[in-house]
Amino acid sequence: MPNKAIYAGSFDPITYGHIDLIKRALKIFDKVVVAVADNTSKEELFTIKERVALIKKSTADLKKVEVDSFKGLAVDYVKSRGSRTIIRGIRMLSDFEYEFQMALTNRQLSKDVETMFLMPNESYSYLSSKLIKEAVSLGANVGSFVPPSVEKALRKKLLKK
Amino acid sequence: MPNKAIYAGSFDPITYGHIDLIKRALKIFDKVVVAVADNTSKEELFTIKERVALIKKSTADLKKVEVDSFKGLAVDYVKSRGSRTIIRGIRMLSDFEYEFQMALTNRQLSKDVETMFLMPNESYSYLSSKLIKEAVSLGANVGSFVPPSVEKALRKKLLKK
Amino acid sequence: MPNKAIYAGSFDPITYGHIDLIKRALKIFDKVVVAVADNTSKEELFTIKERVALIKKSTADLKKVEVDSFKGLAVDYVKSRGSRTIIRGIRMLSDFEYEFQMALTNRQLSKDVETMFLMPNESYSYLSSKLIKEAVSLGANVGSFVPPSVEKALRKKLLKK
Amino acid sequence: MPNKAIYAGSFDPITYGHIDLIKRALKIFDKVVVAVADNTSKEELFTIKERVALIKKSTADLKKVEVDSFKGLAVDYVKSRGSRTIIRGIRMLSDFEYEFQMALTNRQLSKDVETMFLMPNESYSYLSSKLIKEAVSLGANVGSFVPPSVEKALRKKLLKK
Amino acid sequence: MPNKAIYAGSFDPITYGHIDLIKRALKIFDKVVVAVADNTSKEELFTIKERVALIKKSTADLKKVEVDSFKGLAVDYVKSRGSRTIIRGIRMLSDFEYEFQMALTNRQLSKDVETMFLMPNESYSYLSSKLIKEAVSLGANVGSFVPPSVEKALRKKLLKK
Amino acid sequence: MPNKAIYAGSFDPITYGHIDLIKRALKIFDKVVVAVADNTSKEELFTIKERVALIKKSTADLKKVEVDSFKGLAVDYVKSRGSRTIIRGIRMLSDFEYEFQMALTNRQLSKDVETMFLMPNESYSYLSSKLIKEAVSLGANVGSFVPPSVEKALRKKLLKK
Repeated sequence: MPNKAIYAGSFDPITYGHIDLIKRALKIFDKVVVAVADNTSKEELFTIKERVALIKKSTADLKKVEVDSFKGLAVDYVKSRGSRTIIRGIRMLSDFEYEFQMALTNRQLSKDVETMFLMPNESYSYLSSKLIKEAVSLGANVGSFVPPSVEKALRKKLLKK
Repeated sequence: MPNKAIYAGSFDPITYGHIDLIKRALKIFDKVVVAVADNTSKEELFTIKERVALIKKSTADLKKVEVDSFKGLAVDYVKSRGSRTIIRGIRMLSDFEYEFQMALTNRQLSKDVETMFLMPNESYSYLSSKLIKEAVSLGANVGSFVPPSVEKALRKKLLKK
Repeated sequence: MPNKAIYAGSFDPITYGHIDLIKRALKIFDKVVVAVADNTSKEELFTIKERVALIKKSTADLKKVEVDSFKGLAVDYVKSRGSRTIIRGIRMLSDFEYEFQMALTNRQLSKDVETMFLMPNESYSYLSSKLIKEAVSLGANVGSFVPPSVEKALRKKLLKK
Repeated sequence: MPNKAIYAGSFDPITYGHIDLIKRALKIFDKVVVAVADNTSKEELFTIKERVALIKKSTADLKKVEVDSFKGLAVDYVKSRGSRTIIRGIRMLSDFEYEFQMALTNRQLSKDVETMFLMPNESYSYLSSKLIKEAVSLGANVGSFVPPSVEKALRKKLLKK
Repeated sequence: MPNKAIYAGSFDPITYGHIDLIKRALKIFDKVVVAVADNTSKEELFTIKERVALIKKSTADLKKVEVDSFKGLAVDYVKSRGSRTIIRGIRMLSDFEYEFQMALTNRQLSKDVETMFLMPNESYSYLSSKLIKEAVSLGANVGSFVPPSVEKALRKKLLKK
Repeated sequence: MPNKAIYAGSFDPITYGHIDLIKRALKIFDKVVVAVADNTSKEELFTIKERVALIKKSTADLKKVEVDSFKGLAVDYVKSRGSRTIIRGIRMLSDFEYEFQMALTNRQLSKDVETMFLMPNESYSYLSSKLIKEAVSLGANVGSFVPPSVEKALRKKLLKK
């Protein structure tokens, strides 16, 4: 059985919460593909190339992790990769409504793909890419939320403006 | 007693979840008016005329249903129609905060109008006009979420871009 | 169409929140039946007779209200009364999980009966028969939560022990 | 890698919601062990033997499912079985507080075991063993909630009293 | 001990709910500083000067209240004022996710500052600056939600367009 | 101004989460009184004397902390101590319904007392005295959840049975 899970999301940018989740998924699955959604309609801070590069750098020491990007429906990407499992992080403070609507809509779009929720470490339960971007733009040091390369990229993007 | 209920919303576009709710309301009320809010400040995909037309087509087989549009406050519209009841769908995944704020604000704006919540069938509990629009724009088939005429209209709007 | 709604619950005892809801339902329905569940397995403070009597006294000035009790399934009682509508109060602090499970289970048990949720006045949004009983047993004055006859009955039950 | 997941719970009794979840887990894992907690302090309707027997009968047609019971901590049982994954169902109406407290407490008790949440079919999102027991004791037909053998057992237990 | 609390927010515009909270905080603290976030990236209806002026007018009769504005991180402002306490209102209908993420992120940014939550009167539990603005633009009278000077300012801004 | 806060609860038994909250409150208040509710109707594991003793031992190194017990209404105790502030911990996984009902009921019972919510460290956000007791009775080591003296007391109570 091809025991491969897809961790799909926007990762704008990757945080220690995402990395914690990848490590947990690696305990269960033989391979984890981090798949960045290339959704041109959303307003992201980092380009798809930048996001993929930051994830690659941040997960360089993790074996059995692949970083990729995809266009279109997540369920189609999952099937194209020979997997049947989407991983999502569910935090104590998740937007359950959004997560559950996505999971159930995806199930309707493809009966073959299951969404599986994992909980990150509680120290990361409040991390939000959006709040981190706001904090950096207001001058905060976010070294405890994101890896050094990501913090550097955030400062470059947000403070040069 | 004029036993007429107003089902107000943006219906951008109407889904099977809305239609299920209309049918349930018809068990309780003699007449249900589906009232589309003509709120020029919101960014809707379909024009007010298009939304009204799609609802009319989707509810053509239901007797005792009227489709209308209104400008201004919902409570004023309700009173102008000789009704005192606003219907809203409440799903397991509803945005309760928004629904309750609306209901209580409406009550403050008019003591004569009550908001009544009904639950759609659980098969429609995760339907969201927003997610459906996203899914269509990514190439999904949404025939199990909306009537054929609505799916056709969605494809025309979203895929020709 | 027999426009009659059933407001089913344990009412142990009735509070100003319940009475507010009955008044709101009377704006929509021709008649409201307050139906006390005679569920011998639950541990209630007041007997079924006492609960019915307290509701009758508390709603004596409201026309078109009937007070009754029932055994067995609520949906069966609703149908036996020629109604098809169960009313439930939904407060900002409701136990949504319980309310929605009940409503959906009832729907499964009888397709003909709909549950309709109404919101009490926000001043009563935190009233809970359980907390009121606790407060009285600790010596509190609960005159702003329940009618005088109910407060008197609560003191008699809880403070004589 | 021993790709085996443990689905732990009280299953008092098993419902179609549990069975749906087992089937979903079988898409991801090579083997699923349904493990009934033998917790003498809880007041269960069915004995541990009865619960195991009802699950065995209800999952007889599913290959790669094992039914077992355990005493003590779930994480210790998971490790004793050579697994590292606990499965829990997460429904739109779950008691998130309880589920998350359990998952995080278990993580603290053993760093090697992960809890993974899956969503049952939305048709089962409101099923609750407790409500089903209540409904049967009030005379309801619960054939759409549990397999025939379970309904028969419920009637025997609850209606002979 | 300098017993001063900072009530930080966008106040666009101030409502009776905010004023109720300020009065409650004055029971606990010697001084309350209402601090308007001067966040140029957000789209506010009123300028920072207008918001400060409306708060000053609305709290003119309250002693020991200071109105100020700040740029940058809230925690840095709190420390610059010699305080260690941020006040936030928490309503039954709060966006808990946002409030808790903010509080925990702030704690990470400065270990010396605590966020303290107070509940406004339940009559104001549904007030939202956003809904009030919508209601005014649709022609509603919002005199029971905001002070007269604020309602006048809202009409001037929103109805002249 | 007597700047004293009352931290009321059942503390059955005290956990590291409670202790974290006491330390945070000490940053804001000159004195914190930990007040154990002596509610004979609740089924607690430890007697009121034992609970007070465990808190005293666990907070021995904290200055400006007093440990006490009380009977009757919390608001009456708060006033009898010359305070006007009740502290409650609010965790990401709190039972908001219960907390808010308590706070609003208390406010109704005494207009002079405010409830103030503080968040414990996120590492303690999932701690529950109930789950800890369950875990100990199943043989778990709970040294990361409670102080050594409390763990010893738990084992003595729960494992001798």
